[in-house]
Amino acid sequence: MSSTLEIQSPPRIAPSWLARYQAVRTQSTALCAPLLPEDTVVQPMIDVSPPKWHLAHTTWFWETFLLREYAPGYQVFHPEYAFLFNSYYNSLGSRVNRADRGTLSRPALADVLAYRNHVDAALAALLAKPHELPATFFELLELGLQHEQQHQELLATDIKYILSTSPLAPAYLPISEKANVQAAAPVASATWLPVPGGICRVGFQEEGFCFDNELPAHDVLVAPFELQNRLVTNADYLAFMEAGGYRDFRFWMGEGWDLLQAEGWTAPLYWVQKAGGWYRFTHHGLLAVDPAAPVTHVSFYEADAYANWAGARLPTEAEWETAACHFNATPEGGTWLESNALDPQPLPADADPSACHQLLGDCWEWTYSAYHAYPGYSRAAGALGEYNGKFMVNQLVLRGGSCATPENHIRISYRNFFHADKRWQFTGIRLAR
Amino acid sequence: MSSTLEIQSPPRIAPSWLARYQAVRTQSTALCAPLLPEDTVVQPMIDVSPPKWHLAHTTWFWETFLLREYAPGYQVFHPEYAFLFNSYYNSLGSRVNRADRGTLSRPALADVLAYRNHVDAALAALLAKPHELPATFFELLELGLQHEQQHQELLATDIKYILSTSPLAPAYLPISEKANVQAAAPVASATWLPVPGGICRVGFQEEGFCFDNELPAHDVLVAPFELQNRLVTNADYLAFMEAGGYRDFRFWMGEGWDLLQAEGWTAPLYWVQKAGGWYRFTHHGLLAVDPAAPVTHVSFYEADAYANWAGARLPTEAEWETAACHFNATPEGGTWLESNALDPQPLPADADPSACHQLLGDCWEWTYSAYHAYPGYSRAAGALGEYNGKFMVNQLVLRGGSCATPENHIRISYRNFFHADKRWQFTGIRLAR
Amino acid sequence: MSSTLEIQSPPRIAPSWLARYQAVRTQSTALCAPLLPEDTVVQPMIDVSPPKWHLAHTTWFWETFLLREYAPGYQVFHPEYAFLFNSYYNSLGSRVNRADRGTLSRPALADVLAYRNHVDAALAALLAKPHELPATFFELLELGLQHEQQHQELLATDIKYILSTSPLAPAYLPISEKANVQAAAPVASATWLPVPGGICRVGFQEEGFCFDNELPAHDVLVAPFELQNRLVTNADYLAFMEAGGYRDFRFWMGEGWDLLQAEGWTAPLYWVQKAGGWYRFTHHGLLAVDPAAPVTHVSFYEADAYANWAGARLPTEAEWETAACHFNATPEGGTWLESNALDPQPLPADADPSACHQLLGDCWEWTYSAYHAYPGYSRAAGALGEYNGKFMVNQLVLRGGSCATPENHIRISYRNFFHADKRWQFTGIRLAR
Amino acid sequence: MSSTLEIQSPPRIAPSWLARYQAVRTQSTALCAPLLPEDTVVQPMIDVSPPKWHLAHTTWFWETFLLREYAPGYQVFHPEYAFLFNSYYNSLGSRVNRADRGTLSRPALADVLAYRNHVDAALAALLAKPHELPATFFELLELGLQHEQQHQELLATDIKYILSTSPLAPAYLPISEKANVQAAAPVASATWLPVPGGICRVGFQEEGFCFDNELPAHDVLVAPFELQNRLVTNADYLAFMEAGGYRDFRFWMGEGWDLLQAEGWTAPLYWVQKAGGWYRFTHHGLLAVDPAAPVTHVSFYEADAYANWAGARLPTEAEWETAACHFNATPEGGTWLESNALDPQPLPADADPSACHQLLGDCWEWTYSAYHAYPGYSRAAGALGEYNGKFMVNQLVLRGGSCATPENHIRISYRNFFHADKRWQFTGIRLAR
Repeated sequence: MSSTLEIQSPPRIAPSWLARYQAVRTQSTALCAPLLPEDTVVQPMIDVSPPKWHLAHTTWFWETFLLREYAPGYQVFHPEYAFLFNSYYNSLGSRVNRADRGTLSRPALADVLAYRNHVDAALAALLAKPHELPATFFELLELGLQHEQQHQELLATDIKYILSTSPLAPAYLPISEKANVQAAAPVASATWLPVPGGICRVGFQEEGFCFDNELPAHDVLVAPFELQNRLVTNADYLAFMEAGGYRDFRFWMGEGWDLLQAEGWTAPLYWVQKAGGWYRFTHHGLLAVDPAAPVTHVSFYEADAYANWAGARLPTEAEWETAACHFNATPEGGTWLESNALDPQPLPADADPSACHQLLGDCWEWTYSAYHAYPGYSRAAGALGEYNGKFMVNQLVLRGGSCATPENHIRISYRNFFHADKRWQFTGIRLAR
Repeated sequence: MSSTLEIQSPPRIAPSWLARYQAVRTQSTALCAPLLPEDTVVQPMIDVSPPKWHLAHTTWFWETFLLREYAPGYQVFHPEYAFLFNSYYNSLGSRVNRADRGTLSRPALADVLAYRNHVDAALAALLAKPHELPATFFELLELGLQHEQQHQELLATDIKYILSTSPLAPAYLPISEKANVQAAAPVASATWLPVPGGICRVGFQEEGFCFDNELPAHDVLVAPFELQNRLVTNADYLAFMEAGGYRDFRFWMGEGWDLLQAEGWTAPLYWVQKAGGWYRFTHHGLLAVDPAAPVTHVSFYEADAYANWAGARLPTEAEWETAACHFNATPEGGTWLESNALDPQPLPADADPSACHQLLGDCWEWTYSAYHAYPGYSRAAGALGEYNGKFMVNQLVLRGGSCATPENHIRISYRNFFHADKRWQFTGIRLAR
Repeated sequence: MSSTLEIQSPPRIAPSWLARYQAVRTQSTALCAPLLPEDTVVQPMIDVSPPKWHLAHTTWFWETFLLREYAPGYQVFHPEYAFLFNSYYNSLGSRVNRADRGTLSRPALADVLAYRNHVDAALAALLAKPHELPATFFELLELGLQHEQQHQELLATDIKYILSTSPLAPAYLPISEKANVQAAAPVASATWLPVPGGICRVGFQEEGFCFDNELPAHDVLVAPFELQNRLVTNADYLAFMEAGGYRDFRFWMGEGWDLLQAEGWTAPLYWVQKAGGWYRFTHHGLLAVDPAAPVTHVSFYEADAYANWAGARLPTEAEWETAACHFNATPEGGTWLESNALDPQPLPADADPSACHQLLGDCWEWTYSAYHAYPGYSRAAGALGEYNGKFMVNQLVLRGGSCATPENHIRISYRNFFHADKRWQFTGIRLAR
Repeated sequence: MSSTLEIQSPPRIAPSWLARYQAVRTQSTALCAPLLPEDTVVQPMIDVSPPKWHLAHTTWFWETFLLREYAPGYQVFHPEYAFLFNSYYNSLGSRVNRADRGTLSRPALADVLAYRNHVDAALAALLAKPHELPATFFELLELGLQHEQQHQELLATDIKYILSTSPLAPAYLPISEKANVQAAAPVASATWLPVPGGICRVGFQEEGFCFDNELPAHDVLVAPFELQNRLVTNADYLAFMEAGGYRDFRFWMGEGWDLLQAEGWTAPLYWVQKAGGWYRFTHHGLLAVDPAAPVTHVSFYEADAYANWAGARLPTEAEWETAACHFNATPEGGTWLESNALDPQPLPADADPSACHQLLGDCWEWTYSAYHAYPGYSRAAGALGEYNGKFMVNQLVLRGGSCATPENHIRISYRNFFHADKRWQFTGIRLAR
């Protein structure tokens, strides 16, 4: 999701398309509503895009792939926007260097919002006559909605990073009761749940939409294994830190250890040590670390080192998917972008030791599987072929969605992917053995 | 002025201090009035500071050097601002890395403007009782005004650079009649005016304020020389370009030639070649290059290469100052920040071949003199000692002020200085031989 | 092998240990015999180590892991050598920064050769009384021999790179008849050979030595597939080049495309276009590209792009190993370091269309499998635990050995690994579908 | 001298040309005689060139400017050498990137020595018939000799740097009695000697050779000043270090302070603190710092900071030259490259408090004067015009020669120049006030 999105959707005409389009679009602007115009411009590191850019790029996507193709007589909002808001599609021409997104104060936020309105009106007009539209239009419509939801998650994580860079530790939202309350009691110890192995089918096998990287479904041989029944908590992780985990190279991948030393890592991203203990930067500013909540904002290197220290390991993506099927994981009851009034944070797990918690929602779970094409995968033709295929090397798969993922955006077969060093997403750790 | 400011001012109590303070302060905010909040945040290159930062840093200067010292019971506006808005004073503690100024969306523009109001009110209260203030207060008051004027010039040039980075070529101000009119006729050919040499006294010798780098006044031996009676024009410079000036290493300093190749320079900063010829980015967006106007936004390397190509050379700063005295240069009639409703651009020279034009105003003139301390110079004690002295190596002196300099900020003895590669100031070329 | 080596060897006492030790050690110095002292010092890129360093580092390995542990009264040759010639073992203290290996002219080559003699004498003395040595000694002895062979391959490839940087294109060896003769006829077209799938056992399952990364043997599910019966040739690859393969982003991984543009890649490493066509730098200087020989010195990105262009794909490592078992691949008849008088180059395949050629030897074959731990893998305790485990992320597996691999160093289960951008090894392409 | 050399020499035919040529050429190879071939290849930092390169580049100079022009039928030794051994002459085509000189193991040292012999023989043949040669030939001959002497100084300093990078601290030469003996008694305190000012003539005014940067001689106005009668010693400098000189930003230029922090400077280059106190790396390996000897291997930033701490300043180059004339400085008795059997190090000054010591020899003395063209300077035509003129910005002048300068290479008017951060030359400090 550092980039990427792809389609594999049966076209369909449903009475709710317009309502769904508008709901998704509104969620993007709602995420930016608490921001000042100043916040929407900056890019404090290369992985982060300015919120103004996200609002415009998602709009460019609708304009480029749907309106220019299917809306007769559509007038592009501004001829330069294709250059300004293309993300990475070589098929669609040159574009602003990714590292320079944060130098562009113009177009202004107001212009970008006007761009959104312009495009939304044109889409609404099209959707008023759905029977005149071909099936491929609805495939692209579905893709556009999924794409916009992916950028909603990035908006949530990029906004957090942007605000974190100020020494003022500004709050995105005023503090809520819920956010500041620590768990009354420590979370229960993790238990190990057995998962039977065998020849397991992985990949998308349902009706409906999925990205192309979830296809084709195929069999893999999985040996029986055990999985922990919840995510690793801050208390668990603090034990690793206090045991010298960040000072002992034996737990670390070589490239992770080099990075740790170069960057001076001693804790997850956003953690700050103060007199009273450890704090972390949140959407409400600095708050005390909650021992019961899942640890988040860790790189693969940290997740892997923690697992080594704990005498366990990370699951493979096939194991994760097999377990999620085995435990009948569903989005219900998980922690999602909508769970907490746009204030994403992972929450402590339920105490039931026999159930498997938090598989969907809360934190993306690092797996020890490289993000490669499934056997038989092929890239789509045209610009959409650039979405997923070209990223299928040098990254790792994450599974399960997070507290910043829109709830109806997730699936058990969903494959997210990031480089091993990334920490600004809501990434977490689940152990296997 | 890439940094720097210093004091050498007889203290005095004048009825107009408050009015002058308010006039200077108002000019800073007036310069930012045409901007959107988005424009005030970004830092597209390290030399440029966000306008919001300029507005805050100048305010921090008043708070730090005057209010904290002389206003009993003064409450600092925010305890973190000293860290956020210190520019380069090691004496005053750590600060935001210069390259990271553009990542800080907070404090917001509105907060910075409130900071300005807070400080202005406290200053006004102090100035209501001038007889209770010591002489040193007025020295610092003068320095603060000069400092704020220096940042006004930087505001003008930084705003230009910021807006230039957008492919939309946004206009800072709507186009005025004046800006878009090309000179009716070509400017007259430059003439050579003789300047007698001898033992000349340079440095500040008047009453009133000057920076410490203009002191002490001292004698230098200057051989008789000739100076051109006007700045090099765009037409002159185009001849150099068309003669292959950017492709022939023989005209260039070695480090300049390497830079030209690495950066792909083929024209001054802001120039763009289009179907109809050369255009340049201005405060009004893209406008055609006016052949009669002085060439500007050239580095020392380009100024020097042009001079070599023209069979001439750049003057030394002693020559420049001697000539300015000889020709009785005064600010009147020059082109200044106030000349054109905050729309800075150098203008064509008067046609009189016997007079020396544009010595003050229009463009800072590169000299072939390193920015070194004058004989007998000594740094001031305390934090103010960091203003000028620590920059006195590896830079070159520029003289005369520019169309972005406040008119009452200039003097014949004024020494500005930049590294040889800098182009975003209104720098120009005058030939000597 | 960019680093790394590990042990899993039944200890044994054989009459031939000393002879084998001496044969291996002699091969290392023989590889350096054609070099001048000057050639043994330089490091023209970070992946390449100076030959002098290889000679010393392999010696340090014997001294550190065997002599210091098992030779009573052994005197280290020089106390600083542990710092100078440790490669990457954090367990064994600080060391010369890898990028700085090429700045050290001292110790001189003669000193390094004396170091080798000193250590060889001590080892020979130990091996004179094998019955006094414990089983673990022989495990380490085997590991040391394997380690030294790995560095022999690096010596061959690093020497090639070092000599290639001189515009004189110096020859490591005088030209031989064999090297310069082009294949009389074009190589036969590649054929597709079917490989049955099923649950296949991969990993080391024999008697004898293997590295820890080949363990444990385990089952994987492999779908039936087809494999080409020979490596991709220079003629094949030229067709890709001539079809615009290096100019069409659609064939490339995103990171590969960015690299191609940044580096200006238009052909494999060492290829030079001259009037008469394509040449390549070899151990004999510049020679014409032989259309019938396997293409080599390609990155994973190039191998993958070629496969995409050809409508095929790279095999996974499980597929490769399954095929190698299926076709009973053996080292006999392959092209190895010893095949051609220390003059490594891959040779054209036999013409039989029904056999599978070149699986072992000639070129390391890029697979589309990340270099990860096998299920159940665990790192060894102590310094030797750093050899393989810490590299198991962000690299890709290569299989089969090359013309620079010592013949008795290879196995079907052998896992080599490099980052996707590396080209200076003898890497090649085999297609699957 | 970081580059550069130029001519202003009356042609003359003298019986000793051949002998002088051979003496100079022999000195270059003599400097390399103690080296191993390995030492002649490496380039541990960009300012340092491999000794092999120096030996070849000086030879290329003779071939290019003399033999190709004046020796009928001369055959170049190798057609690629012009590319390999051109230093920075754009007029003469492309060349090896300066930073890559240390990656070229070939041509071998033996080939370079053969190149020298080839060129020397051709030169000797030419010089056998001096009456057939034009005056311009002898101008270039003189220039070639001066050029080679400049590279002898660089050979001495580059060799020192190269050997210093090995933790073995290898000695270039076996230790001599002289080198290791500390001064019996502390050196006498420095005294201040008055120098009268006035209109002083600077620049070369003698018969014979000088570089073009010493011309034209011209008048400058110098105010009366005082100069210390000797160089600053290690004992003096240790007092600065012990007083916290490297930890107090107030003494430092801003760019120097930033560099100090980035590089972690706490002492001059080559100094190492050990149990017994401070040591420095020398041509004999590590030796204790001699308190009485002049401090050397300091940057301009350190020299300037020391002067600020001491309440003094560095002289300008006009002051230095005026003083050298006033005190009748001569090379006799100074410490030069030949003084100590090619083992350069500055020596303690004579104790006479009324004389001015060490003006010529021992250490190059940093001045506070930018390296700019003298008034009226013009670049020569052709390739030789690139020698000096293109470096005349952003560097500082040093005066007086050092213990690594050939004795007959120096003049009072000689202008050496380096960037303010350079430390690997034998640079030192003399105070003025």
